[in-house]
Amino acid sequence: MAVYTEIGDVELAAFVAQYDIGRVLSCKGIAEGVENSNYLLQTERGSFILTLYEKRVREADLPFFLSLMDHLAARRIPCPTPVHGRDGLALRRLASRPAAIVCFLNGVWIRRPRAEHCAQVGRALAEMHLAGADFAMFRANDLSLEGWDRLLQACLAEAGTVKPELGPDLAAELAALKQAWPRELPSGVIHADLFPDNVFFVGDKFSGLIDFYFACNDFFAYDVAVCLNAWCFESDGAFNVTKARALLQGYGKIRPLTDDEARHLPLLARGAALRFLLTRLYDWLNQVPGALVKPKDPLEYLRKLNFHRAATAPSAYGLD
Amino acid sequence: MAVYTEIGDVELAAFVAQYDIGRVLSCKGIAEGVENSNYLLQTERGSFILTLYEKRVREADLPFFLSLMDHLAARRIPCPTPVHGRDGLALRRLASRPAAIVCFLNGVWIRRPRAEHCAQVGRALAEMHLAGADFAMFRANDLSLEGWDRLLQACLAEAGTVKPELGPDLAAELAALKQAWPRELPSGVIHADLFPDNVFFVGDKFSGLIDFYFACNDFFAYDVAVCLNAWCFESDGAFNVTKARALLQGYGKIRPLTDDEARHLPLLARGAALRFLLTRLYDWLNQVPGALVKPKDPLEYLRKLNFHRAATAPSAYGLD
Repeated sequence: MAVYTEIGDVELAAFVAQYDIGRVLSCKGIAEGVENSNYLLQTERGSFILTLYEKRVREADLPFFLSLMDHLAARRIPCPTPVHGRDGLALRRLASRPAAIVCFLNGVWIRRPRAEHCAQVGRALAEMHLAGADFAMFRANDLSLEGWDRLLQACLAEAGTVKPELGPDLAAELAALKQAWPRELPSGVIHADLFPDNVFFVGDKFSGLIDFYFACNDFFAYDVAVCLNAWCFESDGAFNVTKARALLQGYGKIRPLTDDEARHLPLLARGAALRFLLTRLYDWLNQVPGALVKPKDPLEYLRKLNFHRAATAPSAYGLD
Repeated sequence: MAVYTEIGDVELAAFVAQYDIGRVLSCKGIAEGVENSNYLLQTERGSFILTLYEKRVREADLPFFLSLMDHLAARRIPCPTPVHGRDGLALRRLASRPAAIVCFLNGVWIRRPRAEHCAQVGRALAEMHLAGADFAMFRANDLSLEGWDRLLQACLAEAGTVKPELGPDLAAELAALKQAWPRELPSGVIHADLFPDNVFFVGDKFSGLIDFYFACNDFFAYDVAVCLNAWCFESDGAFNVTKARALLQGYGKIRPLTDDEARHLPLLARGAALRFLLTRLYDWLNQVPGALVKPKDPLEYLRKLNFHRAATAPSAYGLD
């Protein structure tokens, strides 16, 4: 659940007056996004999302995220498009925080995705990768190998309270990944967090991607591996190869994976599983008393990690 | 802040299919209302509010509230209008809770009301009172004298921890009110909770009333007294007689107060202050550890109560 910064009506009217979107008709804080305060803003010109960036997002990264959304939207990727004020700026301040207005995107997220949804997600991800090819800005992935190491070090002392031997197990895994991690694969801007709640559908038809606040430069196939983790496991922990095949085929129709990428899929999927395992473990071990958000079970991702460790070939994911 | 019950996409689509409002385009939990879960629902036919009634609202009262909104809307009082399904029903169940869809109402609430807002609120309140005259259902005010007594009894033992002598002071006040409370005054359906956050404006123009979940049958002038408490004190505790005069004049242009009502205003205002003092005191003394909502200061209403105790004539409120 989101943080809610209170915005006064007078303050809001003055803020909105800097844009060419008419008068404020309504503005309601919405329960979307854990990192920021989001409001569904309705004006005489339609619906928008107003975001106040709370302290968990680095202010220096905001121009990257907003420019990326501009860039993708210009290439017809359905995503929130920043609205620019009359002064040309998309990023300004409101209630002492960085703030931006983006266009509203129709759709709801799918709680129990089926293969047909996975196929559409794969296609959309590939389209996003191609559309980002000529994006000029760069942001390193701070949640790749080095970031995992930092998280692991912060968790090692207490990891055993979650599961015996979890610390040494993850340390060995990270060492193995560091050893085998590819140095070169096709790269560009990736979403890096394309979970079901970040993909909208109207009915069963894909309508858009949201939440680009983890976007960065990294291997395209790593982004695919994140999706395999996020979309293709059942709630009982079983891997659904039909969904994986649908996702990979959807992706491949737009941007075929190279042999090298396909070969590295099991390894990249291990890395992606470790990434979410470690952030969840960190949040689990560092719970704030009375916090609004109940942390997610890190061990869900240990089970996923173990699946990928057993997968020695891309055929485990339904690739021929 | 509201409770959020999670609604699945499939469940929501099936629910909305019972209405003639097109397909779901979007549905976002909003931070509005403390008692219920509210969602801003957008469909092919426009914007709506979907409400799931959580346990703090008595299910048996829901037909009264929804029928009242229907009744008022039919008489052109701008308020959320329940949407009826193809089966004619406005109230059904979703996620194991009573649920209803109402039309979306434009507007934001005014954080620092000025006299011009108070005048419009007075007028709207009077229009609501007149429009409710022929409403056929009845709901007793469970937060009048008897309800205050129950709350006071529940708070007496600990009230002194908030302020020395607070318990005996409130007991004496309640006894005096019981003694002097009028038996007959013009009555009908009242809103009973018309605070600034329940009145919407577009720009500085009144656009509607929301949150009828305290509505009941009681004296019209008591509703006016609630508004005097809610709208006419400054944040430093000072009573702003200019705002009160504007509110009462706005009201009187639509429904002039009788002499008897005007004469009773100071007493009714004491009652209204005691009502909010007691519910706040109860919430203050019964805080749930880790709750989302920080309870409001009960003593703000002790200061208001003391103002009204000193006000012996309606002229204190700017009435001639």
